[in-house]
Amino acid sequence: MNSTAKSYISTNKDRFIEELFSLIRIPSVSAHTHRQPEILQCAERWTEILLASGADSVKILPTEGNPVVFATKFIDPKLPTIMVYGHYDVMPAEPLELWSSKPFEPEIRDEKIFARGADDDKGQSFMHAKAFEYLVKNNLLKCNVKFILEGEEEIGSSSLEKFCKENKELLKCDTILVSDTSMLSADKPSITTGLRGLAYWQIEVTSASRDLHSGIFGGAVANPIMELSKILAQLTNADGKITIPHFYDEVEEVSDYERELIAKIPFNEEEYKHDLQIKAVSGEKGYSTIERTGIRPALDICGIWGGYTGEGSKTVLPSKAFAKLSARLVPNQQYEKIAQLVSEHLTQLASKNIDIKVSSLHGAQSYVCPIDSKEYKAAEAAYTKVFEKKPLPVRRGGSIGVIPIFEKVLNVKPILMGFGLESDAIHSPNENFPLDLFYKGIETIIEFYNEMSN
Amino acid sequence: MNSTAKSYISTNKDRFIEELFSLIRIPSVSAHTHRQPEILQCAERWTEILLASGADSVKILPTEGNPVVFATKFIDPKLPTIMVYGHYDVMPAEPLELWSSKPFEPEIRDEKIFARGADDDKGQSFMHAKAFEYLVKNNLLKCNVKFILEGEEEIGSSSLEKFCKENKELLKCDTILVSDTSMLSADKPSITTGLRGLAYWQIEVTSASRDLHSGIFGGAVANPIMELSKILAQLTNADGKITIPHFYDEVEEVSDYERELIAKIPFNEEEYKHDLQIKAVSGEKGYSTIERTGIRPALDICGIWGGYTGEGSKTVLPSKAFAKLSARLVPNQQYEKIAQLVSEHLTQLASKNIDIKVSSLHGAQSYVCPIDSKEYKAAEAAYTKVFEKKPLPVRRGGSIGVIPIFEKVLNVKPILMGFGLESDAIHSPNENFPLDLFYKGIETIIEFYNEMSN
Repeated sequence: MNSTAKSYISTNKDRFIEELFSLIRIPSVSAHTHRQPEILQCAERWTEILLASGADSVKILPTEGNPVVFATKFIDPKLPTIMVYGHYDVMPAEPLELWSSKPFEPEIRDEKIFARGADDDKGQSFMHAKAFEYLVKNNLLKCNVKFILEGEEEIGSSSLEKFCKENKELLKCDTILVSDTSMLSADKPSITTGLRGLAYWQIEVTSASRDLHSGIFGGAVANPIMELSKILAQLTNADGKITIPHFYDEVEEVSDYERELIAKIPFNEEEYKHDLQIKAVSGEKGYSTIERTGIRPALDICGIWGGYTGEGSKTVLPSKAFAKLSARLVPNQQYEKIAQLVSEHLTQLASKNIDIKVSSLHGAQSYVCPIDSKEYKAAEAAYTKVFEKKPLPVRRGGSIGVIPIFEKVLNVKPILMGFGLESDAIHSPNENFPLDLFYKGIETIIEFYNEMSN
Repeated sequence: MNSTAKSYISTNKDRFIEELFSLIRIPSVSAHTHRQPEILQCAERWTEILLASGADSVKILPTEGNPVVFATKFIDPKLPTIMVYGHYDVMPAEPLELWSSKPFEPEIRDEKIFARGADDDKGQSFMHAKAFEYLVKNNLLKCNVKFILEGEEEIGSSSLEKFCKENKELLKCDTILVSDTSMLSADKPSITTGLRGLAYWQIEVTSASRDLHSGIFGGAVANPIMELSKILAQLTNADGKITIPHFYDEVEEVSDYERELIAKIPFNEEEYKHDLQIKAVSGEKGYSTIERTGIRPALDICGIWGGYTGEGSKTVLPSKAFAKLSARLVPNQQYEKIAQLVSEHLTQLASKNIDIKVSSLHGAQSYVCPIDSKEYKAAEAAYTKVFEKKPLPVRRGGSIGVIPIFEKVLNVKPILMGFGLESDAIHSPNENFPLDLFYKGIETIIEFYNEMSN
């Protein structure tokens, strides 16, 4: 069977790549409101691909935000149903000048696909369509299949909770499969068993009502960038702890036994530093790098701007300064509560000389997947067959907003069968996806279906 | 005589405005290197205006940077020579979206000219050309006149010191007149008797070599914006003092007597706060607002940027963060020394997790003008006639790089006959210049020539 799948993939690979490229070429950037036409165009293109891959019915369903692509293939109501989740929206590609090739004109170099969305999540979602195609075309499908592809993952999946609640029957399934995460490395397969939650804020600090001449007013009027810097600088201390009161109150304390298991996950600090070209790893005192990104929360400033940012020198005392702040959350931390307490704390830190406005932009709960379920074991067996190594269960630092929603609303624990690598540079310039993992991913998904039918 | 000047101005005012607008329409932004053609075009336009105004000879002279426009009118070698200095370059107009009309398409609204350069310094320099034209056309000029207009004032006049040293004979003069400053208000005329010096740095902080996914790496890799914020936040303390070691070492301590005189300068804090729409004045403890901007140094962050600054939320752990920092300096502070010690201190403040690069962009010495000279008294008399109030001598917070250079190289103490207002929003969006002050300025300059000939 494995060789049949391999040979099907090999025979059809040029077509697979061309179909994937047709999705990538559509700049479906959900953060940019002017990209609405491309969002819809990408949803339409997905319907064509799913129909051609063997779905019985494909619909574009409205939500309060961007629509959902929903496809089904029914074999027998008595058979179990697998639902595949993915997203067709992508992150903004900026800063464009750091890309070696154009982000929405995919290019294969060094056996990798370079483009925004090559991995996250067009590349990874598309592997499911092609594994499904293989099973349908070869009469090997032994379960019912649903596909749900959303268009707001990169902006917080804010419409999906309501959509899930209102469409429980439509979305009813036994298993949820998601490929939107990464593995430890190409030769160290791993399955993501935990995701951090997310909260995100925009901060706006205002001093005078207009930009001022820094010579005439400098020293007598508060500088909003300095005030913002002082606020931000206070949010973490020298031990890398977040100083916001009550931030850690609900953080799950991981047992010593689990920390021992984490310590066994292969990690080469020198390689990590070399790959990122950093001088040192850093973060919360008392925790390893894998713990810092897996079981501990983190606070990051994702963006900052204010005043003159052009070439050369302009002497100005700006009116405003802005920052974007995000927190990665761990099990038990409620993002709504964190969003609220951080907003309040930021406001309290502001001096009386300025106005501060804090907006909470989006959030997601964290997620933990059990490793003793039938689905986890099927995934484990599938990876073992294709990668010839047993995959390690690893908690990862990223957030996928809909995962805890599926858990809560549909009462199914999604399986995170990711095939990305940290070097894929998702959310960054030069995002890429190795062809080798693209093909192996399709094979692994096929094996998963086989395992589940056994 | 006053009525003759008034009537000449009144008769010719439409032409004056059209000539000034022809200068303003050329976006001669020296900070933008792609504006070289406009820099040269603006210099050319000035030569036409000065020739038409009555100069015998006008040349565009090269420097190591942007050229200088130099004009002369010789009456008699035995008569004294007045040299007028101005600059034809302007600040960048960004952020463009905050302008009510286009910055390089001048518009008259509410009896004010709105445009980049309306005041600083096309408007103010141009008044000298028209005062000169009146004197020449009416055979009233009783001294030799030189004009020097430079194209690098807004980027630090870096070529002018060498130019002055190499052209001492050409620039020889008895009096230097400059209109590139402001008055207390339209009905409180004042003459600037002191200027702060300037030092300016760009800071670049680098963590990883590429932007990273904040979920996967957040908490384990240093955030360059947080690191930069922590560096900047340490530069001033709760008392508004600059904490950089040795920063205040050379600061001139102003005598109690002088501080008593400063306390008599009219200043309405409520009006000031209302005009700027600030909640409070702020700055160095123990000093008044006028002292903070006149006799004390100040440190301002003029710009900051890094990471995602677009619409919505993008979760990224950026590779780099940048800031532009400026210091306003007071007498005895040497800008080269300050540039050096601040650069060193910033580097020392950087944590071991990041790389920091500090570039010193430009600088200027501070300046103090005596109030007992013939020239100062002539200016005082001229303002008194036109504004019907004796002008107050005031030390202002701005910097004009060439002023201390003229003092050092040509051994002449420039007279700073400014006619701008703080509300002119120079260096800011919606820069403007009241027509009333434009006409009164021309009159005052004419009176100055008369006073000097008496």
